[in-house]
This record gives sequence, structure tokens and C-alpha cells, in this order.
Amino acid sequence: MADIKAVVFDLYGTLFDVHSVVGRCDTVFPSRGREISLMWRQKQLEYSWLRTLMGQYIPFEDATADALRYTCRHLGLGLDDAQARDLCDEYLRIRPFPEVPAVLRALNERGLPLAILTNGSVHSMTSVVQQAGLRGEFAHLISVEKVRLFKPHTQVYELSERAFGLSRSELLFVSSNAWDASGARHFGHPVCWVNRSGSGFEELGQRPDHIIESLEGLPSLLHG
Amino acid sequence: MADIKAVVFDLYGTLFDVHSVVGRCDTVFPSRGREISLMWRQKQLEYSWLRTLMGQYIPFEDATADALRYTCRHLGLGLDDAQARDLCDEYLRIRPFPEVPAVLRALNERGLPLAILTNGSVHSMTSVVQQAGLRGEFAHLISVEKVRLFKPHTQVYELSERAFGLSRSELLFVSSNAWDASGARHFGHPVCWVNRSGSGFEELGQRPDHIIESLEGLPSLLHG
Repeated sequence: MADIKAVVFDLYGTLFDVHSVVGRCDTVFPSRGREISLMWRQKQLEYSWLRTLMGQYIPFEDATADALRYTCRHLGLGLDDAQARDLCDEYLRIRPFPEVPAVLRALNERGLPLAILTNGSVHSMTSVVQQAGLRGEFAHLISVEKVRLFKPHTQVYELSERAFGLSRSELLFVSSNAWDASGARHFGHPVCWVNRSGSGFEELGQRPDHIIESLEGLPSLLHG
Repeated sequence: MADIKAVVFDLYGTLFDVHSVVGRCDTVFPSRGREISLMWRQKQLEYSWLRTLMGQYIPFEDATADALRYTCRHLGLGLDDAQARDLCDEYLRIRPFPEVPAVLRALNERGLPLAILTNGSVHSMTSVVQQAGLRGEFAHLISVEKVRLFKPHTQVYELSERAFGLSRSELLFVSSNAWDASGARHFGHPVCWVNRSGSGFEELGQRPDHIIESLEGLPSLLHG
């Protein structure tokens, strides 16, 4: 991939594990953590898509709180305000996947500037990245806040072009979320899909250019 | 509701039962019908939302076919082209909920003009409505085809205003889909949510003006 001049990563599910919240959910609602986390994540995404369609942007963190409220009510779990805050704060403490620090370092050593493009706010992104000691690895931390639209809206992907001053074809977009990878591919990025769960790609008229099972495969893909 | 001058219905899930397809799915994939139908419907909606966000409208029927393909692959079910066509055609034969004919008749007898506003194409909508012998009950059959965007995009709801020449506050919008009801409410319609499944409303910053368990409750709600 000689034409690639920089790499743009999705954050939630790609660099950081959204299901890091399972443990805390289990503490509040014993043995329901996994179930809560799965539905919570699904609703969080749905609400980001629906709010954008309704022309009513809200910060991703508010969509996350709304999604948790829906999830707990749907599962018949009483959730008070303190518990809701506690669980939502857990999204500020999610952890990177184990291979992430070494992979980012390897790419930087080879001279490839890196960025994150996330639905999350600058505050959330900075919190989790700093906590993981990874701030220095990124040239740009880009949030949809700037355009007040969520992925996969086309205008979101333009933010990476602007940040780097590079064209879409020079930016490799890396995501574990097949719908996000589809949006980026449709926009014009070469795309690497991180298929962590061994599932099928979404049927949105796109195919990823590359598929890897974890980010470990990325350095050799870029410089193989 | 003296100010209501006309009623706009959602089609899929509100007037017609999308899970009418379970039987045919069961024939092709024995005992998997319910599971297929649920995931198929979920993906169909996701793809309509995601395609709109990507700025890449496709007919709802194509999103339906894509969603079926994803669903079967995800569930490990081999689906050939003939089976795919067969199952998708089943969406042209879905049936109205049992109370629908009498309710529509009752509203018309009381002088309220009725419309359908659907994500589906004019062709799909006309097929199922005619098959059910209900074409005469509707003043307007409105499809998102005209704006090439899916619900809950704001421009979709404008179509009802234009069809009737009435303002949004004079049109009661009726939907079983809480995200659709939320979109219509945000747009400015008074909204009646048909909560057929006893589930919770979506957390999208809106509340329905009225909640009924089936459409049977609608005539008395309007003229109670």
C-alpha cells in the first residue's frame, strides 16, 4: 500500500473495547452485564443514526445515556440516576484492545501519521486515549462534534481529509464496525475491516479492501 | 382531538404485519422462521437508516433483499437466488392486522380522510393494500420514493403535509414503530403510538401524545 500516507482509526470497538463496561454492569446488575452491554451498544448506535436523520444532533455521550435508560427499562432493570451516571462514566474508562499500543508504535516508527475519527466527543476521546497512555501516538484526534452529524454521514469522513490535508485515497480507514467501514469505503477511503468477531460484512453495497482479525495484522499489511 | 383533520398511518408493523413472512421462512428453513423474520426486519431498518446517512438511497425493496442476504449468512443458512426472490416477494403479500379493515371504515364514515406514509415503494404499498381490499379507504398512498430518503428524515414527513394541503398539527400520525413515532413527533405531528408488543418507547427525546395497544382504540380516541 505505497499510496497510503496516513491511517485513520475508528475508536469504539476498533481501538477500544466497548464491552469493557461489562464488569461494571455486572457489579450493578449481577450476571446481566453482557446482555446489558450488547443491547446498550446496539441502541447507542441506533440513536446516533436516528438523531442524525431527525436533524437533531446530541453529543454521543447523551445518546449513550439514552440508550442505557432504554436498555434497562427494556430488560426490566430498575436504574436510578446515580447508577446511570456511574455506568455511563464507565465509557470514559474503556480499555484499548491488547495489541493496540504495540501496533500504533510500529506504525509511527515507520513514519505513518495516525488519527482517530470518532462519534464520541473530544472530551471522551481524550480521556480514554490519555488514560491508556496513547496520546503521543496520534497526530490528530478528530470528533464528529465539529459537524454535529454521526457516522456514516459523508461529511464526517471529510474531517480526516481536512485534518491531514490529504485526499481520501491516501488515507487508510480502519474500523471493526462494518457499517462504518462501508460508509468510509463509499466515501472513497481504502478500508481495512477488523473482523474481530468472525461475523459477516454488512450488505451496504461495499466490500472492504482488506480484512484482518485483529490490529496485529496491520503493520505487515501496510509494509508487507 | 377536534383539531385533527386527517390521519396518516405508517404501513409496515402498523397497518400490516411484517411478521406475516414467518410462515414462508419456515417453509424454506424449517423452524427458523421467527428468528429470520426478526433479524431481517431489524437489518432492513438499519440499512434504510445507514443508506440515507451515506447519501445513497436505494429502494426499500433492495434494502429488504440486502437485509435478507445478511441475515441468512449470519445465521449460517445457505440462500440461493430463487429462495431470496421467493422470500422477498413475501413482503408483497403481508397481511393487515385483523382490526385494520373495520377501523379504517369507521374513520372514513366519520369523515376523516386517511393516508399511508411508507418507506416502501408505491408498487409494494399498492400491492399489499389492493390485495387486502383496502385501496378505497385511503385518500393518499405516499411513498418516500419521492424524496429518496427514509424515515425518520424530516423531509419524509413533509410529504403528508403536501399531499393533504394541511399543516402538521392537523395530521394525526399513527405508527407502531417508536422511532418513527419519535421522528413524526419531532417534526410536529400529534402522534399516536400503537404499542402492540407492550415494549418501552424509544429514548429519542420525544413522547407520544397517545398510546393504544391496537388500532381498535383509534376511533374512540378520535371521537371519544
